[in-house]
Amino acid sequence: MRHFIVLIFCVIFVVGAVAPVKAEADREQLLKETGVYATFAVFQASEQWWQMEPQARASASADVKKIIEKYADRLTTDVHLLRGLSERADILIRIHSKEMIHNQNFLLDLMATNLGKHFKNVDVFNGITKALNYVPNFPGDLKDELKTPPPQGSKYVVVVPIRKDAEWWNTAQDSRTSMMKEHTDATVAYLKTVKRKLYHSSGLDDWDFITYFETSKLDDFNNLVTGLLQVKENQHNRVFGDPLLLGTIRPLDEILEVLAR
Amino acid sequence: MRHFIVLIFCVIFVVGAVAPVKAEADREQLLKETGVYATFAVFQASEQWWQMEPQARASASADVKKIIEKYADRLTTDVHLLRGLSERADILIRIHSKEMIHNQNFLLDLMATNLGKHFKNVDVFNGITKALNYVPNFPGDLKDELKTPPPQGSKYVVVVPIRKDAEWWNTAQDSRTSMMKEHTDATVAYLKTVKRKLYHSSGLDDWDFITYFETSKLDDFNNLVTGLLQVKENQHNRVFGDPLLLGTIRPLDEILEVLAR
Amino acid sequence: MRHFIVLIFCVIFVVGAVAPVKAEADREQLLKETGVYATFAVFQASEQWWQMEPQARASASADVKKIIEKYADRLTTDVHLLRGLSERADILIRIHSKEMIHNQNFLLDLMATNLGKHFKNVDVFNGITKALNYVPNFPGDLKDELKTPPPQGSKYVVVVPIRKDAEWWNTAQDSRTSMMKEHTDATVAYLKTVKRKLYHSSGLDDWDFITYFETSKLDDFNNLVTGLLQVKENQHNRVFGDPLLLGTIRPLDEILEVLAR
Amino acid sequence: MRHFIVLIFCVIFVVGAVAPVKAEADREQLLKETGVYATFAVFQASEQWWQMEPQARASASADVKKIIEKYADRLTTDVHLLRGLSERADILIRIHSKEMIHNQNFLLDLMATNLGKHFKNVDVFNGITKALNYVPNFPGDLKDELKTPPPQGSKYVVVVPIRKDAEWWNTAQDSRTSMMKEHTDATVAYLKTVKRKLYHSSGLDDWDFITYFETSKLDDFNNLVTGLLQVKENQHNRVFGDPLLLGTIRPLDEILEVLAR
Amino acid sequence: MRHFIVLIFCVIFVVGAVAPVKAEADREQLLKETGVYATFAVFQASEQWWQMEPQARASASADVKKIIEKYADRLTTDVHLLRGLSERADILIRIHSKEMIHNQNFLLDLMATNLGKHFKNVDVFNGITKALNYVPNFPGDLKDELKTPPPQGSKYVVVVPIRKDAEWWNTAQDSRTSMMKEHTDATVAYLKTVKRKLYHSSGLDDWDFITYFETSKLDDFNNLVTGLLQVKENQHNRVFGDPLLLGTIRPLDEILEVLAR
Repeated sequence: MRHFIVLIFCVIFVVGAVAPVKAEADREQLLKETGVYATFAVFQASEQWWQMEPQARASASADVKKIIEKYADRLTTDVHLLRGLSERADILIRIHSKEMIHNQNFLLDLMATNLGKHFKNVDVFNGITKALNYVPNFPGDLKDELKTPPPQGSKYVVVVPIRKDAEWWNTAQDSRTSMMKEHTDATVAYLKTVKRKLYHSSGLDDWDFITYFETSKLDDFNNLVTGLLQVKENQHNRVFGDPLLLGTIRPLDEILEVLAR
Repeated sequence: MRHFIVLIFCVIFVVGAVAPVKAEADREQLLKETGVYATFAVFQASEQWWQMEPQARASASADVKKIIEKYADRLTTDVHLLRGLSERADILIRIHSKEMIHNQNFLLDLMATNLGKHFKNVDVFNGITKALNYVPNFPGDLKDELKTPPPQGSKYVVVVPIRKDAEWWNTAQDSRTSMMKEHTDATVAYLKTVKRKLYHSSGLDDWDFITYFETSKLDDFNNLVTGLLQVKENQHNRVFGDPLLLGTIRPLDEILEVLAR
Repeated sequence: MRHFIVLIFCVIFVVGAVAPVKAEADREQLLKETGVYATFAVFQASEQWWQMEPQARASASADVKKIIEKYADRLTTDVHLLRGLSERADILIRIHSKEMIHNQNFLLDLMATNLGKHFKNVDVFNGITKALNYVPNFPGDLKDELKTPPPQGSKYVVVVPIRKDAEWWNTAQDSRTSMMKEHTDATVAYLKTVKRKLYHSSGLDDWDFITYFETSKLDDFNNLVTGLLQVKENQHNRVFGDPLLLGTIRPLDEILEVLAR
Repeated sequence: MRHFIVLIFCVIFVVGAVAPVKAEADREQLLKETGVYATFAVFQASEQWWQMEPQARASASADVKKIIEKYADRLTTDVHLLRGLSERADILIRIHSKEMIHNQNFLLDLMATNLGKHFKNVDVFNGITKALNYVPNFPGDLKDELKTPPPQGSKYVVVVPIRKDAEWWNTAQDSRTSMMKEHTDATVAYLKTVKRKLYHSSGLDDWDFITYFETSKLDDFNNLVTGLLQVKENQHNRVFGDPLLLGTIRPLDEILEVLAR
Repeated sequence: MRHFIVLIFCVIFVVGAVAPVKAEADREQLLKETGVYATFAVFQASEQWWQMEPQARASASADVKKIIEKYADRLTTDVHLLRGLSERADILIRIHSKEMIHNQNFLLDLMATNLGKHFKNVDVFNGITKALNYVPNFPGDLKDELKTPPPQGSKYVVVVPIRKDAEWWNTAQDSRTSMMKEHTDATVAYLKTVKRKLYHSSGLDDWDFITYFETSKLDDFNNLVTGLLQVKENQHNRVFGDPLLLGTIRPLDEILEVLAR
């Protein structure tokens, strides 16, 4: 049986290594452009999943890659491992595409696989990427700092959904810009070790923003967040996290193997 | 088996395409009149549902159309697909009729079908349509703007239940009118791309209003909601969403096919 | 099988139509007197219930009437249908007696029936009826208005549990009387179409009051509640509903038939 | 089978009636002394429990008495019946001992019985008895009132966990004494009909106090709590109840018989 | 069967007693150093677990020790028993290592054992140890007091996660130091009987701090927490506990035996 599972993962690996050439190009675009729709879908395996035979689970896990391939021309997917670091869930899938319905169609197919049928969808965060709102009015030197290239190949991923209070939204644009400048100043020291991406969620979900981070240095990340808590703008975060999701960035094959263990 | 399922959906389709001629007329009335009772019933399939054979699920799904037909002379039903875009639920059914008990009777029958028995009713929002409260006192040009025909054939549906705070209700009518004018001004830019409908819920549910939207442009919708967050009236929304429901508008047959996948 | 179920309901009906003569007399007393203990027990059928054969469910439902009969000399019971109009529950049972332990004993027996074992007790509200607190100090004309006979044979039932804030309880009696007069003024227009009953819950449950309503006009009820939200006293409702329960008033046989469908 | 169950309860009864002589003495001590650790463990039977044969349930219930006997030299246990009066739970067990670990050991053994394995532990409140904090500074006449002997043989039990706000704890001792005097004055009229006991929970649980009451007059108890809501100290109750637990005081045999019904 | 279980525990004991010599050295380091990542993973056995044969449970429990051994060179683990003293969970595992991913890998392996598959992961708290923030600015005599050696061999463990409010984080460092001095003064009397350890969680979890305590005197601990509630800094604890976890410190073999009972 053990050989069979290894065999399945080998097949997965080979299939996975050939196809994505063209898709990767789209990926760069989708991760950079504005007007892109993102869905963060969080899943937790049911008790029944863990009681299935490893072989059956490995085979079911393999379907995930097929669905990802099927949609590779329309959307990008990143699968991260939350299991063990969050009681809420086992995996987080981040999806980007030009139309929200693509995200839904992908998830409908994924949830109809043998794996999907045994995983509970515990959270969905929807957002859209938009042009920077406050940065154009920041001083030049801060703008320059923000060009620092973010880290690559990070080990950890953190997602923090945020809901602002009504007072924030009723504050004049220039006061908000000034508070966001203070917020951004607090991030400068961590631009090299923490990669950030922002999604707007008002009206698409019960959040205003989904903030997404990648880092290999969780000590830096703790310092960064502590810094962000110490600025005035934080007084307008009605909810910050709840749930915050912490996970690891690993090859998809490794994540699927964990689910088949 | 695959042929059998296709056959079932063909039958559904033919049956579905003939009957609703007269009902459609009522539909127009029910969607426009005041004093109409609406129930938004939200359902999530149980784990067991997804472990049933596709054929059994297709056959069970077919019953939904029978119940809809049975009640077509008393109420309208719109079924939307939440699955994948909301962790709470798979489908949203919006029902309109002249008496709340019709809505309940429809749901009792629906929940007694083979499909209904495997779906959990996770949310019910009840409301009533009423004459416009503040618009009659708006300036003429705003009233004219509000005659803009809403979009047709939208792809997305959003439902946002709202609860106001006690201060809102204790504010004088003219102050509320002035705040609602500011609120309405913020919507003008989006009247062409976002269709809106309002239901009053106080005393019928744990909400004050159910706001219902249809749009094909979720980026516009995000901007619209952001605009609505920035007006004074938003300071009196004790709850806005929680849950906000985002789904897609698709032919019923397609939705039932998704549930049978 | 269908004949068998009909037969069972005929038997239920005949049995149900003969016995309650004497009990009805007590019922009038219990519904009018002060010092009467009320328990509102709310139940939801388990998934397993709906997967039982209709015949088995009809037979199990019949036990409910036996228990009601058994306790008819000590308490009154009203069973209402929430299913479809509330995601929380299927039925609401309102019980009145001279001692809380009777209410418990009735529920212990009910929950030990075949039906009870498949229903989850999702809410219990306990209260006591007391002499009117503020009315004696109301002006004469308002007192006269309050003598308006309430409607009979209403179709809908609404239960709204309420918790006041600490400030309310620390407000002087005459200020509270004045706020309750304003509250009561707002109800006058609806005395003919909405029947009201008040239970005191402090110390018997996590509520201060259970408010109970019967009406056939839910549009009036929505207006009434909107009116009550607009008075000062509403600023002291820490919780109003959550859960509000909306259901229909139907013959017990019809409700039991729905549960056996 | 019915005879068999009766037989089991007879055996339980006989065994239960002989042993506790010495334990009772300790009981008086434990219920009076300071520095005693109390655990309130609240349990709800699973759906599976109610689907077991009555005989199997009666036999499983019998184990409860064995565990109580086993620990009789180290702790006192009081079992009360919540079922029907609280949606949260079926039974409440109040345990007192000189060391918290005894309470845990008792519960570990109880939860390992056939009954325990089918009951969900839905709440645990931990507390410690301490010397009176404010009473020593009360005027002499109030101190005298407090010597009123509490009622014996009450029918009902109520448990109200309480969490104070940060402002309460930051208020000077003499201001708190003055507020507690007002609080205590409100209780004087009910000393004859309501028995009270206080446990301190800060750091042992997510509460500051567990208040425990026994009474046969729930109308008095409702008046008492209403009186306590009307004093200033109530403005510092961040949580009062949630959950409040109301149950009945019955012989253990009767409670076990209810669970086997 | 009983002999078989005893045998299994003997084997566990012998294996457990030989290996950890070198690991213990790392343990001292990990528990003292800054920049160490801690994960508090809280588990509750499923209903199915308790319905397994004791022998099967004993055998499954034995796997826990194997996983602990496997990771002994990278991390320290402390297993505590919550069952009976907390309704949330049965066991608490505290893990320390130099990289968060080690903590996750350990938990992935643990959760893949036969025991892990029947335990629900109900809470995860993540934190990092850091240099003391306020102590360097405390007066010398307080610094001296803080050198008091903490108690060894305590019987109880308490974990209190804390979230501060936005105002706290926006308070100047010297005002916070002054408040933390007052806080620390309140702990001096308990340094001999209560051992404390602090973890920083901002950005790693939905908490700001995880506070960890060991004591044999829960009465002292109750007094300590009461003292901490009475200082100004407590006004900035948005959440203190919820959940607070109270458990006992016992040999791992004893805890595993409890789970196999």
